[in-house]
Amino acid sequence: MPIPSPPQGAMRGKMRGLLDMTSTLPATSGIDTTLSPARALVCRACSARYPLAAQHACYECFGPLEVDYDTAALAAVTREQIEAGPKNLWRYAALLPAGQDPATRVTLNPGLTPLVAAPHLAAELGITAPLWVKDDSANPTHSFKDRVVSVALTAARALGFTRFACASTGNLANSVAAHAARAGAPSVVFIPGDLEQGKVVTTAVYGGELVAIDGSYDDVNRLCGELVETDEFEDTAFVNVNVRPYYAEGSKTLGYEVAEQLGWRIPAQVVIPMASGELLTKIDRAFSELVEIGLVEAPAGGWKVFGAQSAGCNPIATALHSESDTITPVKPTGIAKSLNIGDPAAGLYALEAVRRTGGWMEYAADDEIRAGIRLLARTTGVFAETAGGVTVAVLRKLVESGRLEPTAETVVFNTGEGLKTIDAVAAQVGPTHRIKPSLRAARDAGLLG
Amino acid sequence: MPIPSPPQGAMRGKMRGLLDMTSTLPATSGIDTTLSPARALVCRACSARYPLAAQHACYECFGPLEVDYDTAALAAVTREQIEAGPKNLWRYAALLPAGQDPATRVTLNPGLTPLVAAPHLAAELGITAPLWVKDDSANPTHSFKDRVVSVALTAARALGFTRFACASTGNLANSVAAHAARAGAPSVVFIPGDLEQGKVVTTAVYGGELVAIDGSYDDVNRLCGELVETDEFEDTAFVNVNVRPYYAEGSKTLGYEVAEQLGWRIPAQVVIPMASGELLTKIDRAFSELVEIGLVEAPAGGWKVFGAQSAGCNPIATALHSESDTITPVKPTGIAKSLNIGDPAAGLYALEAVRRTGGWMEYAADDEIRAGIRLLARTTGVFAETAGGVTVAVLRKLVESGRLEPTAETVVFNTGEGLKTIDAVAAQVGPTHRIKPSLRAARDAGLLG
Repeated sequence: MPIPSPPQGAMRGKMRGLLDMTSTLPATSGIDTTLSPARALVCRACSARYPLAAQHACYECFGPLEVDYDTAALAAVTREQIEAGPKNLWRYAALLPAGQDPATRVTLNPGLTPLVAAPHLAAELGITAPLWVKDDSANPTHSFKDRVVSVALTAARALGFTRFACASTGNLANSVAAHAARAGAPSVVFIPGDLEQGKVVTTAVYGGELVAIDGSYDDVNRLCGELVETDEFEDTAFVNVNVRPYYAEGSKTLGYEVAEQLGWRIPAQVVIPMASGELLTKIDRAFSELVEIGLVEAPAGGWKVFGAQSAGCNPIATALHSESDTITPVKPTGIAKSLNIGDPAAGLYALEAVRRTGGWMEYAADDEIRAGIRLLARTTGVFAETAGGVTVAVLRKLVESGRLEPTAETVVFNTGEGLKTIDAVAAQVGPTHRIKPSLRAARDAGLLG
Repeated sequence: MPIPSPPQGAMRGKMRGLLDMTSTLPATSGIDTTLSPARALVCRACSARYPLAAQHACYECFGPLEVDYDTAALAAVTREQIEAGPKNLWRYAALLPAGQDPATRVTLNPGLTPLVAAPHLAAELGITAPLWVKDDSANPTHSFKDRVVSVALTAARALGFTRFACASTGNLANSVAAHAARAGAPSVVFIPGDLEQGKVVTTAVYGGELVAIDGSYDDVNRLCGELVETDEFEDTAFVNVNVRPYYAEGSKTLGYEVAEQLGWRIPAQVVIPMASGELLTKIDRAFSELVEIGLVEAPAGGWKVFGAQSAGCNPIATALHSESDTITPVKPTGIAKSLNIGDPAAGLYALEAVRRTGGWMEYAADDEIRAGIRLLARTTGVFAETAGGVTVAVLRKLVESGRLEPTAETVVFNTGEGLKTIDAVAAQVGPTHRIKPSLRAARDAGLLG
């Protein structure tokens, strides 16, 4: 597998800033390695190793860090142990960097969301193999972000942080604010000023600080990268900045669950929405890890990973289509705001996973996204947010173009809840009839044949 | 226990109409009594017995019917059997009227929702014993209605119905439309014309028929009572009309789950929102049943049942406060639309349960409801719809008035999701700061101390 190049230019400068910050944090890691299988942070680009602290970029090459584990500890985990665990993501605690002791968790106990059989959707798309929707809108704040936040904040607490923060396109904001409320901890959440009302209110209602920024998500993210260096934010864990390596691990539980829910099998094809690209890489990684540690058998033909973006923010898919190894940042537009990251931090790794597994990427325009939301709802009873509409629209395109094999088992990931982006379809759907409360009115409206 | 009087006047006329209708339905019950513990429908008022068909009122006295069980079959159910079951309400299938065979279920697999410890809420209210929030917003369409709909539609399919319908204040509409979409069945849902947009869109998006009625919920309900008698609706199960006895049983799973989640114990006090009053009576009934069949020990001091209404629709609480045995219907007003049933079908039974157990009822004004939503969110990370705000506001009042014992374990029920009634708090919460994306702007806004 080719090692992606370290980030260049502006990205490199941004990371250097974050590196300086780490020196102001508690010197000693609080991750309890007698319980946690995590052993180090390791650079995804150059493999340099660091202690389990609040650091997310490599001192050597500025590459992103990820958590490295004691493989013997992971290999000792059994299916029975997992199945006997709690009915949430903490059943996989023995595979996560923190939270083995339930008393240390900062969590809404997300996970173990439904894997929904979608035969009617399959039939409409001409898919003849089993098709499943992994419905992460069933999490406590109704997006997959509850997974990453639970792992990030649990690690953050172990590392000594007392205030919780994030840069967010909305779902992460909801989740961080709700987690902080449950834990009785202060939070400060940064969002672009133009978010959907559903995501603003659902953050603000939890009572923490909520800072709307006149700018894009990338502007918000840049500001958080600066704030995290200040003395005033020394006590503050930004889930997707200074504790990002732990945060990213939470996404792996989506892959673990799909495999467990399929009876400890990996599906032949997965279709995953991409914002930073991290979710896609972590689900792929979860599958690899399950095979490596012997919890599932490697499927005969491997698995193919497909990525979904919106036409308004498609830098990763564009790189794939143009056979490039460089992600060119874009200024995002369009209704799929939760995917609107124009400078995707894990884009190169998502490209690598899709190329390595023989998958593909596509992107969907706003009207296709709306149609995707409605198609999914009508055929499965799952009402997805715009990101889910993107994924279903891309699924359709992948079938039509022949990139996705209609005779192979497929799982599509719905990462969020339609109620949060209700404006996307509000103009398109509504009552089919409007009548007075009488039998005569019902008859006149054609309701009685 | 006194037997409530059968309904009088207009209610009696309405029921007679429904009785006529039953003759047009399939004559043979399809409930498989070799699997189901249900044996008959029995009148709650006069104890007359009927076969397991689509009938909901007594031919003798017009009283409402409920499902009667083979008590020996119920008593054979063990904790181990339940605990080994699926991670949803079907773990209690052996206690329900239908759905024992998984292939017969019409369901989104709701249930087993979180029982959330609420120490910060308890502290704010001066409650010193454990306080829990049973958070039914975690169900697939984010309200407790998924429970009753799953049981009703599974029974309806067994009884030969092929189209699914309801009269709804919103949550039920969402659930019936989503269940029908998952099952690939047609649906027709009737709602008052002034519902929250969140509930209209979340119903319409599933693609069934959605009929908005110029009138109140009670008008909608009356029209459905007429439609169900027509030839054109012979194939149609109205979950809360002609299959209501089965529907109501679904609510009992909330009581079963609370007991199981507490380690097979019944809490000393429960606070439950009331619309028709049915949910309250069924949770109380679930507790009684668990004791009767030996799955839990009767708690030393029994349990007290408390009911919560809004000031805009408080006919049951008003009857209690005025020591009356008659529910005087009201014309509902106020923001708690999911509770706005002015002529509550189970009101007398709710009164009976509250009086028998030594509980109480209160009601909350719109501003108190909004404050209740925010208090719950801020202290627990649970964002409730207005009905949950009602319940928390009433919890506060019950503590303040001394009706609820602050040293006794208490469970409050949140039956729905804040995202569906976002307008209730949208004007009150929002960003605490709005800045440009720069450190200087953050400093000027006071974010750096």
